[in-house]
Amino acid sequence: MTVGVLERLRNELGDRVDTDPAALEEARADKSGQRSPGAPLAVVHASDVADVQATLRIASATATPVVTRGAGTGLAGGANAGPGEIALSVRGMTRILDVRPDDLLAVVEPGIVNADLNAVLAERGLWWAPDPASRAISTVGGNIATGAGGLLCAKYGVVRDAVLGVDIVLADGRLLSLGHRSVKGVTGLDLTSLVIGSEGTLGVIVRATLKLRRLVPGAPCTVAATFPDVRTAAAASSAVTAAGLQPAIMELMDATSLEAVHRLLALPMPTPGAAQLTIQTDGPAADVEADAIAAVLAANGGTVSLTHDPVEGERLLAVRRSFHPAMERLGTTLIEDVAVPRSGLAEMFDEIARIERDHGVEIPTVAHAGDGNLHPNFVFDAPADGEVPAKIWEAADDLFRAALRLGGTLTGEHGVGLLKRRWLAEELGDDQWRLQREITRVFDPQGILNPGKVFAP
Amino acid sequence: MTVGVLERLRNELGDRVDTDPAALEEARADKSGQRSPGAPLAVVHASDVADVQATLRIASATATPVVTRGAGTGLAGGANAGPGEIALSVRGMTRILDVRPDDLLAVVEPGIVNADLNAVLAERGLWWAPDPASRAISTVGGNIATGAGGLLCAKYGVVRDAVLGVDIVLADGRLLSLGHRSVKGVTGLDLTSLVIGSEGTLGVIVRATLKLRRLVPGAPCTVAATFPDVRTAAAASSAVTAAGLQPAIMELMDATSLEAVHRLLALPMPTPGAAQLTIQTDGPAADVEADAIAAVLAANGGTVSLTHDPVEGERLLAVRRSFHPAMERLGTTLIEDVAVPRSGLAEMFDEIARIERDHGVEIPTVAHAGDGNLHPNFVFDAPADGEVPAKIWEAADDLFRAALRLGGTLTGEHGVGLLKRRWLAEELGDDQWRLQREITRVFDPQGILNPGKVFAP
Repeated sequence: MTVGVLERLRNELGDRVDTDPAALEEARADKSGQRSPGAPLAVVHASDVADVQATLRIASATATPVVTRGAGTGLAGGANAGPGEIALSVRGMTRILDVRPDDLLAVVEPGIVNADLNAVLAERGLWWAPDPASRAISTVGGNIATGAGGLLCAKYGVVRDAVLGVDIVLADGRLLSLGHRSVKGVTGLDLTSLVIGSEGTLGVIVRATLKLRRLVPGAPCTVAATFPDVRTAAAASSAVTAAGLQPAIMELMDATSLEAVHRLLALPMPTPGAAQLTIQTDGPAADVEADAIAAVLAANGGTVSLTHDPVEGERLLAVRRSFHPAMERLGTTLIEDVAVPRSGLAEMFDEIARIERDHGVEIPTVAHAGDGNLHPNFVFDAPADGEVPAKIWEAADDLFRAALRLGGTLTGEHGVGLLKRRWLAEELGDDQWRLQREITRVFDPQGILNPGKVFAP
Repeated sequence: MTVGVLERLRNELGDRVDTDPAALEEARADKSGQRSPGAPLAVVHASDVADVQATLRIASATATPVVTRGAGTGLAGGANAGPGEIALSVRGMTRILDVRPDDLLAVVEPGIVNADLNAVLAERGLWWAPDPASRAISTVGGNIATGAGGLLCAKYGVVRDAVLGVDIVLADGRLLSLGHRSVKGVTGLDLTSLVIGSEGTLGVIVRATLKLRRLVPGAPCTVAATFPDVRTAAAASSAVTAAGLQPAIMELMDATSLEAVHRLLALPMPTPGAAQLTIQTDGPAADVEADAIAAVLAANGGTVSLTHDPVEGERLLAVRRSFHPAMERLGTTLIEDVAVPRSGLAEMFDEIARIERDHGVEIPTVAHAGDGNLHPNFVFDAPADGEVPAKIWEAADDLFRAALRLGGTLTGEHGVGLLKRRWLAEELGDDQWRLQREITRVFDPQGILNPGKVFAP
């Protein structure tokens, strides 16, 4: 049967079917640190919609699972392909099919990298706002499939706010065009939103109509402030929001993160225990807002520096941007992604401190403080088998339950994938979990689309 | 069997079960001009979630259809209840359960009127942005169930952008809590978005978590401009968007609308054929933007008046706000709701002029020009049976097909209901139509929720 599938794929798709061991190996993993138990059957490098349709028709006819992949930069294992599965790569479908400045929309293929698209749009004064930290390496299709977030979401929205429509190929190879090209449209159920964040379980995104913005004119202003501890910093960030101020970026780093980055960049070490907020304002009122924010931070215990110079601003933000490289120096990390209502941020940091104590693990944490999304990093020594140790999962379990108690969620922007599937029913409740799974079966009756991800029991 | 249902409802819900002829009569219609063929079994006036659950358990056990109603202000017949059906009114569920200025969210029951909620929020400097023209009389639950739009959507978004979560009661009476209280959240499928605009076919919305904004500070500026014809006015509105300017409101009235309103308000008659744009800017740059917009309109053939005085601005907008009363003077109207990409607005007005000629009907039209949403009003003499004449439907059919040819949609903000169901498959395609209908069956296996609406064959 396995030979049958490969033969059929090769007969229809020729050299777009790749069984080179290096390609198969690459398809086993994303950037979560997880790896599937073995190599997939093949990687199909789709170059157009017809390739995707042909692959899915063969997969359906042979009941072969299909794992769709973009650039493989996910952080939840959602695109990891394993034994008996076809890895369907849309990374080569990178065309920009239409850009309409008058309608503020673009139609693109899924494999184009977010930053590459935005470089082209910027030449026309346009911008697709979703800005995951991975934007230089992640694809637009992957951003949509995971419902990606980023740094700018409190002011400029998440992916759900920036997609007008998607074309998807169903498990049986049929092509559906979902959504609209108009700003408004309410014909039937909003399947576009349903596909956003569905992590490859409903269909393969082969085209997307994106809602664009005009580039924000003028230079941003940057404010950095240090606080004696992370709770004070979190409370100060809440005070900024409560004052009715809307920064473009508001990033929080706790003491362990800050120390690790200062060590990496060979900067003078910060005061022990100190946490930092880095804030950018943009648009016509950037200067006025930055001054107002600096005043709120100072009144809430911060030692503030403010710059209206973009180069100096980039230098301040570089500390935040060096977080992931600094983490890699500390050991293996499990990158988590809980989100809470903004007012719960300080309390969530209390919970993280408690979990560090209770479980004896170090959890350096950064947060998109403007929208209540935290990335706690569980640091550990990787065992020989590459698995996350049980002790770390116990601490993560404690973290997830704390986020839910505070009215939050397991995952703000990374998705469920493999890593969070065992907690999904905890958040959704059994009734909703089953209902969601039944909906996937309407799109994919055989269950061949990314099985074992998100809804695996 | 009918007696059985009523008895069971009365046993469980007592005097919340209403069979007064006036109440039954009212439940037959919304504001579309459509009326169901006869009275429903009963109107249940739910006062809390438990009432809704009890009603649906009885409906499920007896396979009785349920039509959920708010204030009955819909324009597509979606809430019209007929023989053999239970009209389930959530109009009495009006409580505001939580307002969190720090998290910019509110939790409300579905029956609260949009304007009543916003009056309470305004006292705290907050605002729920969706502003359908019916906001003084329509409920938040109805706004969500229809995916309502309004005048401010191009700048401030539609309902889909302003709801974080909903609690729904399924057909079998189970209560599900969908969505998040956090800004970000991607656990599983986005069922909140699926419920928005689902017109009572998936479940009964009993609670909603709304995403709020802060009230925009300062007074708006208003620009009114007249143009020799509607095509020039439409082109000028596109030029405003193309210039990168973002008004809060940009309303277009064609010559017939303008004349009808001037007659109603006893104003001097406009130049024959003249069309009008009424534009408001708001926020910190309102003055600067209004000046820039006035310049664009003048350069595009407009005779422009501009005011920075809010009272004078309201006087200018009053012309647009008097459109519906003016239509009522002309005869019976079928209010349509097509939307096209913004760049297609002028061409859509060409099509409307052609349809007027080809079908010999008058179609006064207003448009939310900023987002490409048009409301053509088909005027006719109502026959004795109250039905829309076949000739009018033929003209409407021509209109829908023209909107689809221009990359648009049947309905921007009113929904499908009864009025547009026979064109739904035309826009979605048969495959997507069937898929959507199968999804409703996952929520409602017996098909008792608003049967005959949206997806009726």
